[in-house]
Amino acid sequence: MLNVQFAANPDHWPIYQPLLTDAFQTAGLAATLGTTLDPSVVDYMVFSPRGQIEEFERYTKLKAVLSLWAGVEQALPLVPKHIPLSRMVDFGLTQGMVEWVTGHVLRHHLGLDAHIHGLGGVWAEDVHPPLAQDRHVGILGMGALGQACGEALNALGFAVMGWSRTAKSHPTISCHHGSAGLDEMLARTEIAVLLLPDTQATQNTLNARTLALMPKGAVIINPGRGPLIDDDALLAALDTGHIAHATLDVFRQEPLPPEHPFWHYPSVTVTPHVASVTRPKTAAQTVVETIRLHEAGAPLRFKVDRSAGY
Amino acid sequence: MLNVQFAANPDHWPIYQPLLTDAFQTAGLAATLGTTLDPSVVDYMVFSPRGQIEEFERYTKLKAVLSLWAGVEQALPLVPKHIPLSRMVDFGLTQGMVEWVTGHVLRHHLGLDAHIHGLGGVWAEDVHPPLAQDRHVGILGMGALGQACGEALNALGFAVMGWSRTAKSHPTISCHHGSAGLDEMLARTEIAVLLLPDTQATQNTLNARTLALMPKGAVIINPGRGPLIDDDALLAALDTGHIAHATLDVFRQEPLPPEHPFWHYPSVTVTPHVASVTRPKTAAQTVVETIRLHEAGAPLRFKVDRSAGY
Repeated sequence: MLNVQFAANPDHWPIYQPLLTDAFQTAGLAATLGTTLDPSVVDYMVFSPRGQIEEFERYTKLKAVLSLWAGVEQALPLVPKHIPLSRMVDFGLTQGMVEWVTGHVLRHHLGLDAHIHGLGGVWAEDVHPPLAQDRHVGILGMGALGQACGEALNALGFAVMGWSRTAKSHPTISCHHGSAGLDEMLARTEIAVLLLPDTQATQNTLNARTLALMPKGAVIINPGRGPLIDDDALLAALDTGHIAHATLDVFRQEPLPPEHPFWHYPSVTVTPHVASVTRPKTAAQTVVETIRLHEAGAPLRFKVDRSAGY
Repeated sequence: MLNVQFAANPDHWPIYQPLLTDAFQTAGLAATLGTTLDPSVVDYMVFSPRGQIEEFERYTKLKAVLSLWAGVEQALPLVPKHIPLSRMVDFGLTQGMVEWVTGHVLRHHLGLDAHIHGLGGVWAEDVHPPLAQDRHVGILGMGALGQACGEALNALGFAVMGWSRTAKSHPTISCHHGSAGLDEMLARTEIAVLLLPDTQATQNTLNARTLALMPKGAVIINPGRGPLIDDDALLAALDTGHIAHATLDVFRQEPLPPEHPFWHYPSVTVTPHVASVTRPKTAAQTVVETIRLHEAGAPLRFKVDRSAGY
């Protein structure tokens, strides 16, 4: 019998309780689930920073903490280093991100805004975008999310490049890595999609120097994390028109304060951290499958590398 | 030596001449190309209704007419019935249509408009669309364009249904046909994409009766042909909100007259017949490959069925 503590947003417990119960039953694992188990008996913790767990030292039997969030930068300072932490890799979250990124890339590729705002009765023919095969999209971050988005865009025909900290290879996405690889990729990136984790190494990945490397008229789409961009450098590049547009879903401070210039910049689209969410049904299945594999003796799935920060 | 008359828009001859010349060379076919060949020696005609060919009876040797347009409803009354007519099936045109349709479907699926118009400083969280797998898209017309669009949407995760006049089958798209099949599909279609040819049988496919079958809040996307929709019935359904939005790229009269109500309806997006175009480079390759296969003894590719009208 496993004891599993739910230590995420308490408002979400009524949603997750039946889903986790079902998933454990389907997996054939006997488990006691609760929000107020005796810490000394807890085997696994389903976690988010909204869970307000403070005294981790009382969880003496804890085998692993399972994050409901894909980004763990807020979980890392809360979960003691000796406790293994697993990131969320959720079909629903990944799929939602693929749909959002593909929609926003196509919006810019096709120039949808002109038609959505309306042509005002003027039949302005003969404006055709290039085919996707001639549009260069650069994905910064080739983790589960970046790779899935890159593959979907590639399947639609886009010329997709991917960048990661360490070298990766992919059958259809041209892969770049390291600092020189980033410069090289950005120089050809017409539409950049930011899906890097928030770590010390990734802060201000887009800054005055790297934005200047991009072709004039490039577009930035950031569904990753706010600190990946130097906001002042971005605003300056938008002012000159070197960067034509930025669609930002994540910010250094969320909610984005009402007085922030991003809200009213004509060349900025603000979306309120909606690009994708953990979907309880598929997330509950992910959590239980991670526990099942771990109980069967496998190494912890999606384990966070503390030195890399993700 | 083949004699090939270019009888499309004369303005396009300087674009097509080098592309066709290259394509014939690559195919290893000797051909004389021109806009003013002696009609009695012409083997093939590259055609659009903008070509103003009048005296077809003088083209006594003509083996086939190759349309540069995918839709042949304007070509049919011009080209005598005894001359085989081949529709354009162009990689570039198909691919452009796939991109346009996917972008417009995602626009409605994700609710992009609210963010494109701007939230005005209000951080309105917690609005998430369903995943694409729970969004039902109905493609009316399962020809080359409809099938390619259906497959791309399916690959992105959408629940795609397809309708055609005659029965078809597809490994991943649920296929419907005939009048009863249309009613059945429309009853479940949240986003309809119209890619039927313009024939007598397809006129007013969406009318007061069939629009009423659709779920409340359904969206219409028409990159096919204007006469597929009864405009007055659509306006009435938009007025009541039964149909939430229509994105129209094609119209009964083009250019759409400045006084037409579509221009200023808030729930209508007008795009000026830009969803996709024949791309000269790939179209030239298509034309030459069709001629090469025909010269090698194969039946004419993409041959128009005069009784069906496409």
